[in-house]
Amino acid sequence: MADVVKVAIAGAAGRMGAEAVKAVEGADDMELVATLTREDSLEKLVTSGAEVLVDLTVPSSTEANVHFAVEHGIHAVVGTTGWSEEKLETLRKKLEDHPEVGVLIAPNFAIGAILATEFAAKAARYFESVEVIEMHHPNKVDAPSGTAAHTASKIAAARAEAGVAASPDATETDQGGSRGADVDGVRVHAVRLRGLTASQEILLGDQGQQLVIRHDSFDRVSFMPGVLLGVREVAKHPGLTHGLDHYLGL
Amino acid sequence: MADVVKVAIAGAAGRMGAEAVKAVEGADDMELVATLTREDSLEKLVTSGAEVLVDLTVPSSTEANVHFAVEHGIHAVVGTTGWSEEKLETLRKKLEDHPEVGVLIAPNFAIGAILATEFAAKAARYFESVEVIEMHHPNKVDAPSGTAAHTASKIAAARAEAGVAASPDATETDQGGSRGADVDGVRVHAVRLRGLTASQEILLGDQGQQLVIRHDSFDRVSFMPGVLLGVREVAKHPGLTHGLDHYLGL
Amino acid sequence: MADVVKVAIAGAAGRMGAEAVKAVEGADDMELVATLTREDSLEKLVTSGAEVLVDLTVPSSTEANVHFAVEHGIHAVVGTTGWSEEKLETLRKKLEDHPEVGVLIAPNFAIGAILATEFAAKAARYFESVEVIEMHHPNKVDAPSGTAAHTASKIAAARAEAGVAASPDATETDQGGSRGADVDGVRVHAVRLRGLTASQEILLGDQGQQLVIRHDSFDRVSFMPGVLLGVREVAKHPGLTHGLDHYLGL
Amino acid sequence: MADVVKVAIAGAAGRMGAEAVKAVEGADDMELVATLTREDSLEKLVTSGAEVLVDLTVPSSTEANVHFAVEHGIHAVVGTTGWSEEKLETLRKKLEDHPEVGVLIAPNFAIGAILATEFAAKAARYFESVEVIEMHHPNKVDAPSGTAAHTASKIAAARAEAGVAASPDATETDQGGSRGADVDGVRVHAVRLRGLTASQEILLGDQGQQLVIRHDSFDRVSFMPGVLLGVREVAKHPGLTHGLDHYLGL
Repeated sequence: MADVVKVAIAGAAGRMGAEAVKAVEGADDMELVATLTREDSLEKLVTSGAEVLVDLTVPSSTEANVHFAVEHGIHAVVGTTGWSEEKLETLRKKLEDHPEVGVLIAPNFAIGAILATEFAAKAARYFESVEVIEMHHPNKVDAPSGTAAHTASKIAAARAEAGVAASPDATETDQGGSRGADVDGVRVHAVRLRGLTASQEILLGDQGQQLVIRHDSFDRVSFMPGVLLGVREVAKHPGLTHGLDHYLGL
Repeated sequence: MADVVKVAIAGAAGRMGAEAVKAVEGADDMELVATLTREDSLEKLVTSGAEVLVDLTVPSSTEANVHFAVEHGIHAVVGTTGWSEEKLETLRKKLEDHPEVGVLIAPNFAIGAILATEFAAKAARYFESVEVIEMHHPNKVDAPSGTAAHTASKIAAARAEAGVAASPDATETDQGGSRGADVDGVRVHAVRLRGLTASQEILLGDQGQQLVIRHDSFDRVSFMPGVLLGVREVAKHPGLTHGLDHYLGL
Repeated sequence: MADVVKVAIAGAAGRMGAEAVKAVEGADDMELVATLTREDSLEKLVTSGAEVLVDLTVPSSTEANVHFAVEHGIHAVVGTTGWSEEKLETLRKKLEDHPEVGVLIAPNFAIGAILATEFAAKAARYFESVEVIEMHHPNKVDAPSGTAAHTASKIAAARAEAGVAASPDATETDQGGSRGADVDGVRVHAVRLRGLTASQEILLGDQGQQLVIRHDSFDRVSFMPGVLLGVREVAKHPGLTHGLDHYLGL
Repeated sequence: MADVVKVAIAGAAGRMGAEAVKAVEGADDMELVATLTREDSLEKLVTSGAEVLVDLTVPSSTEANVHFAVEHGIHAVVGTTGWSEEKLETLRKKLEDHPEVGVLIAPNFAIGAILATEFAAKAARYFESVEVIEMHHPNKVDAPSGTAAHTASKIAAARAEAGVAASPDATETDQGGSRGADVDGVRVHAVRLRGLTASQEILLGDQGQQLVIRHDSFDRVSFMPGVLLGVREVAKHPGLTHGLDHYLGL
């Protein structure tokens, strides 16, 4: 890839897409060569000379977009949801025929949130107790958040691997369920508060000490450094990568 | 009362009592004139010339101790639990015959915890959302903590009085009860973590802003300034006072 | 005043003004009857039938705007800076001739920030140590923030009044000034961090306990509840009121 | 080494030593075979059959203790300060003649504090801004803390290596030094507060997000898991290891 990466953005009219357009335009080492909305033909990817496709579309479009890109030797950075294990497997097969092409499927572009989860999982074996608190705006319909459940699962797996016992808990009576949800043996609490966007706090406790790892996302713009990192790194990682954490060198 | 207050401590052999002995001995404006354990006769209160009794005994002893003190014109600062509404009423009647004597019954001597609750209740009417998180050592058998439930109740009452709607919450699915307990319409979450003693955090949220009030108790010694404040103030407040908050001039 | 308050907004084209227009339009108990930019004549206030003027203009305009309003029996809620003690005094004199008119000059409309300061000042006498940390975006040119300095001054005054000693500090060597600024004897620390808007944290510590009061402003919209509170209350407070805290019933 | 490690503790009469005695006695996989105070001969190490020496003595004793242990094939876990680069080099040479012996010199046994520093250094390249706040009891004579300065240095080195620019800061006027100390280009703030023991908070900020990593040490007992980890791991790491972080598999 040349010094300046040629980028196309699909889903450019959506909220994430619009942020991505601004982010790529603002990056010195990138050139935005095409923006695609649902009306545009995928041929635009080829004619524009794009080296990397950023796909921020919808579940019904993303698979076709990515396969088209791979077939034309264009790397892809994908934030769209809806990639089942079956679809991922089909894509892996396709990539075997295009061994120089890289695809990143990233369920989460917030580097800080990914780091928080990874750090918590690494630290979890060294602390007797661990719990997770996630805090979101009150319009969110599901609890706990997918990110918090994912964090709890990774923590539980890391503790199991290290042979660490469950967090101690002498609770005998719990009026109304104040102790939260049990996700793989890790307690997860969900707070809903006007003014917040998306926050996650992992509390790790041991005799005489506490380690707290907290991530706050205030704005959608917080995902853009992750998108740009994906664009910069995807060509160096041929094949399918699932999760931006694999690019973070942790 | 003279410049130096003469103090007797009942329950001096207990953990709180032992701390109180040290605290009173360390206070320039107090003189420890008697310490009572369960073997001692209450007459010691009179012979020692005590002006204030600090009662840190057990539910089965405290009522007799306080009535004896009142009958002998000795003020009382009481941290012992077990004072039912019925017992309080009997004490109120007794105090009518001794109008110069003050008794403080304090369920909580941690000034910081009391302030946290009071501030949260005052602020609650100005925020769309409010939730409470309490955090304790994992040997605690009940959840949520009495302090947190009390805080939630005071917040709910303040909001009701101001005509504020319930905190918004669009939750449709909650796997495993992550949203915590509902105490008078205020969500309360209980964390259990090795290393902590007793903490309470009140989160208040509104469009574009958040107010967080947090109290951490690291050690039993944190109750002593409240005990000393009680000793200094009790003579100025004849009759029965229930709760140290009434001495804090809020 | 009728059930619905008729409101005019001066400085409607500015960033705060634009937010205020949206906020007043969204309030059931208010009617926006006029918006003024610098081209508009103040006569518009009278012809529109405005009962309350919200002035969010510039220091060179605000004084004339407010005097005009007062002379025409219109209450004023003022967020513009530049009101020197001299100008306030002139306004107080003018209001003596219009005893039914109320004017609120509010240096800060963020209710949460005001509450944080007031609570900290109330709590400060009960804690041996107190320090202030303010955190802002890195484009801010002055440090510490005016709000933090104001909070420190109020804390210092409250402690002086209660006869509390200065916070203990055994520091003998301080490489590079890590202990922060001394504002009336209270240490103030200023953090500059991309992603933040405006936050303030007051730490109060004593033997075995800590009380933390923190306010985060994420967005300019956080000032609007304070503006609306001002509009609702100003008619009930004839004369000059300096600071929204006087309307909060603390 | 057998399933149960035979441990000797030098400096057993000191505060850290006394905690270590309790910790080793409480560990199922260790046997405390000797405790040494300054009166004891080092021969006790040999006659007791110790496999690991835990040295928690004083700078004037530690070097001789460790050399004696190495010469007798006994591993050493050392918490004593005073190991200059020169002394470390002499020890490295000595260990070349005893290639099966491991020595751990650990300036800090608090696993949580070490993790906080390591995580902050790993995350630092992904955030535009980073600052450090350390909080200690007010009897501390130096500021900022060695741990915080060490953290700032590691952060600065990691950012330099990744080619990240300095944290942005538009400050033009700073009354009294509220912006803290500059440690290798990273701002460090020191808070002194009664009630705290030792806390460290690293704030990392970027467009629309914040990552906070915080460690609180409430008690000397928080160092013991690190001491025990050292005892368990030292035999697997022949030669000299400087810093417990090398045992944490990060």
